[in-house]
Amino acid sequence: MSKMDVPYKIYLEEQEIPTSWYNVRSDMKNKPAPLIHPGTLQPLKFEDMQPIFCDELIRQELDNETQFIPIPDEVMNFYKMYRPSPLVHAVFLEKALDTPAHIFYKFEGNNTSGSHKLNSAIAQAYYAKKQGLKGVTTETGAGQWGTALSMACSYFGLDCKVFMVKVSYEQKPFRREVMRTYGANVTPSPSMDTEIGKKINAEHPGTTGSLGCAISEAVEVATSTPGYRYELGSVLNQVLLHQSIIGLETKAACDKYGIKPDIIIGCAGGGSNLGGLISSFMGEKLRGEADYRIVAVEPASCPSFTRGKYVYDFCDTGKVCPMAKMYTLGHDFIPSANHAGGLRYHGMSPVLSQLYADGLMEAVSVEQTSVFKAAEQFARVEGILPAPESSHAIRVAIDEALKCKETGEEKVIIFGLTGTGYFDLKAYEAYNNGTMTDYIPTDEDLAKGFASIPDLGL
Amino acid sequence: MSKMDVPYKIYLEEQEIPTSWYNVRSDMKNKPAPLIHPGTLQPLKFEDMQPIFCDELIRQELDNETQFIPIPDEVMNFYKMYRPSPLVHAVFLEKALDTPAHIFYKFEGNNTSGSHKLNSAIAQAYYAKKQGLKGVTTETGAGQWGTALSMACSYFGLDCKVFMVKVSYEQKPFRREVMRTYGANVTPSPSMDTEIGKKINAEHPGTTGSLGCAISEAVEVATSTPGYRYELGSVLNQVLLHQSIIGLETKAACDKYGIKPDIIIGCAGGGSNLGGLISSFMGEKLRGEADYRIVAVEPASCPSFTRGKYVYDFCDTGKVCPMAKMYTLGHDFIPSANHAGGLRYHGMSPVLSQLYADGLMEAVSVEQTSVFKAAEQFARVEGILPAPESSHAIRVAIDEALKCKETGEEKVIIFGLTGTGYFDLKAYEAYNNGTMTDYIPTDEDLAKGFASIPDLGL
Repeated sequence: MSKMDVPYKIYLEEQEIPTSWYNVRSDMKNKPAPLIHPGTLQPLKFEDMQPIFCDELIRQELDNETQFIPIPDEVMNFYKMYRPSPLVHAVFLEKALDTPAHIFYKFEGNNTSGSHKLNSAIAQAYYAKKQGLKGVTTETGAGQWGTALSMACSYFGLDCKVFMVKVSYEQKPFRREVMRTYGANVTPSPSMDTEIGKKINAEHPGTTGSLGCAISEAVEVATSTPGYRYELGSVLNQVLLHQSIIGLETKAACDKYGIKPDIIIGCAGGGSNLGGLISSFMGEKLRGEADYRIVAVEPASCPSFTRGKYVYDFCDTGKVCPMAKMYTLGHDFIPSANHAGGLRYHGMSPVLSQLYADGLMEAVSVEQTSVFKAAEQFARVEGILPAPESSHAIRVAIDEALKCKETGEEKVIIFGLTGTGYFDLKAYEAYNNGTMTDYIPTDEDLAKGFASIPDLGL
Repeated sequence: MSKMDVPYKIYLEEQEIPTSWYNVRSDMKNKPAPLIHPGTLQPLKFEDMQPIFCDELIRQELDNETQFIPIPDEVMNFYKMYRPSPLVHAVFLEKALDTPAHIFYKFEGNNTSGSHKLNSAIAQAYYAKKQGLKGVTTETGAGQWGTALSMACSYFGLDCKVFMVKVSYEQKPFRREVMRTYGANVTPSPSMDTEIGKKINAEHPGTTGSLGCAISEAVEVATSTPGYRYELGSVLNQVLLHQSIIGLETKAACDKYGIKPDIIIGCAGGGSNLGGLISSFMGEKLRGEADYRIVAVEPASCPSFTRGKYVYDFCDTGKVCPMAKMYTLGHDFIPSANHAGGLRYHGMSPVLSQLYADGLMEAVSVEQTSVFKAAEQFARVEGILPAPESSHAIRVAIDEALKCKETGEEKVIIFGLTGTGYFDLKAYEAYNNGTMTDYIPTDEDLAKGFASIPDLGL
């Protein structure tokens, strides 16, 4: 490919937005391991999940066979509010790097939630509404998922109760106010509204909370309040299904303009973005129709893929959720306090874990300051201030493009720009001030997390 | 028009982006009054402005005749990074209001500066670079313009010195960090780096600064440092020229899809957005080719159009800038401290002032809490958290659509959504908490500002 004759920003036409989600599990020879009940160690059945999740979402969670699942009209209407998202030809970055590589990014930040999370939030809210529920509960750390679910619930007139990790509630009030503007009920966690919250507050007076605790509170409220269910923004199969819209659109844009990617790069926390971005491409790869290098990028401070174990573990610190077979650092693993942004989940999507175990994708970990260096470079030439999470993918995309400069190869690189960094400026400030530090856990640090993984004899 | 068969979001093709700016002054029978020198009271000539502004920008400032000015290729390349901006069909808002009106908005918030300001910033930075300058200076309040100019300077490798009102620098650190990420030198104003800053600090120890003071500092540095000039983000004729891209694109999108607006609504502070949005439409109106209702919306707390005087006044509180004939509340007028967001300038673009004086547009003022009520309603149904400034236009667009509901008229309403509110969440918090208040200056309050207007005997 000598020259790319494509627009700077490729916007599909409205009628070109894919009308079905793609279920990558349908094409996997080795299916992802099922969620299991921590007591019985048996795979969770529909009925087991019913108190927690919406019925239709459970069906999607368990469905390893159906290849395409139609997007309901109501969800499609909402998608049209902010989709299709652009596939951007990063010509300014290419020029700055003086690379023969062709770099593209799929930008999911052009909506008020600021990230791709809205793609699954609106689907989950829709199924809750369809089931006649009054509302949903969830947890949020810095607030991206909570914001997305608040927007989705507002659209369908559903009540939305968000348990926000107390330290974020107090120190990062901005996303809290976005959620409130969308009518959500935002409670700092641990609260005195739940049994588990009271217990944690009694045992740890003055605690500033954790995601694990917020999950436990959200699940307690969902299961104890008639007409409520719990919803989660990552890790689950259903979330990857909804996020496949990212990959489907990317593939459609590539096909329309004759772009043939060599490398596809995405950041990975719980896997919602990466699983979405690679969906169609991984499908081709699984069916033997095409081959791509697919690269997951994770922070060196929370290296689930690159240094974790592929075993059954609890999905949450509070152990109220089912267990999943996944790459995990142990449910007690907590990333260093110096770690900015998201991607701090101890585990990984079971789907992506299986694909990685089967050698269908690579993983690489990168350090924080090098990530922000890439973020700064990208912001200056491409005009978008990226989220710290997304910047992990930028880092590796730049590294790959620089390798092409050495070899002279005109590789086509696509990466996922999951969102914007407008609510992460404390981290940018630390980088600008030169006070940001790196942290790589020692083997001893990791051993502590691994010690929390139960030995199930599976 | 019984039904609008247009996409939710109209994106022009890249090749449909207008390639020239439109100079509305060329079609005005009554030209805007020239800037005058406060000492001589004579119209400013090219040489008078040369120490302050870039040469080419002065030419544009003084040019009342040329109808179309080609957009330089380098600026066009940058525009393609974030333009064309979408013209969005507000179907969700129409449905929520149950109105027969057709509502569209031109959304300028999909770039990291968060507003339309980038349209002029990149042009001004380009002409500075072309002139071989080392850098530029400017002032910023909350930071939208400073952010835009930082991004533009970063792109062209120009030094950018921003004097940021001290209270914003300290209390609103996020935009400061965006500017720093783009390499700008951000100084809290009043500083000890300038003579005027030292003087103000000596006279008013502990002052938290004002926009007027920051302008004075920026101009002092520009005029006393070799290779530097001063750049301004609103009010000036050149700024309206660059912002005409908004109206040109809007008109092109309307023509492509057969949309014939009845009412065009924009918020007005110094006039950069409104002047841009209405450009092509006002041109048609001036040439007698079409008629539109054009409505400027300003805050009731800073009502330049609706309660100001159309006279010569200083453009800045510090009286270092030239004088302009405009609707003004007096250069000493300071909006109430309860006023959130921008639109707090005491004066108004001379171009818009002349058009308003000639009866070619209307103006209306709205109160703060009703603006945020509209903002909340819009955010919930249209999925975009609007800037407080933009929400003034939303308020009036909703009011007009509700009038249509009463009369049954299917009017077509277009308003300008200038930007996003991600950095205005303190104001949203006040609204969410019910602590936001309204303020309308009394005639006595206004009289104090009017008293600062010099009697020039003109």
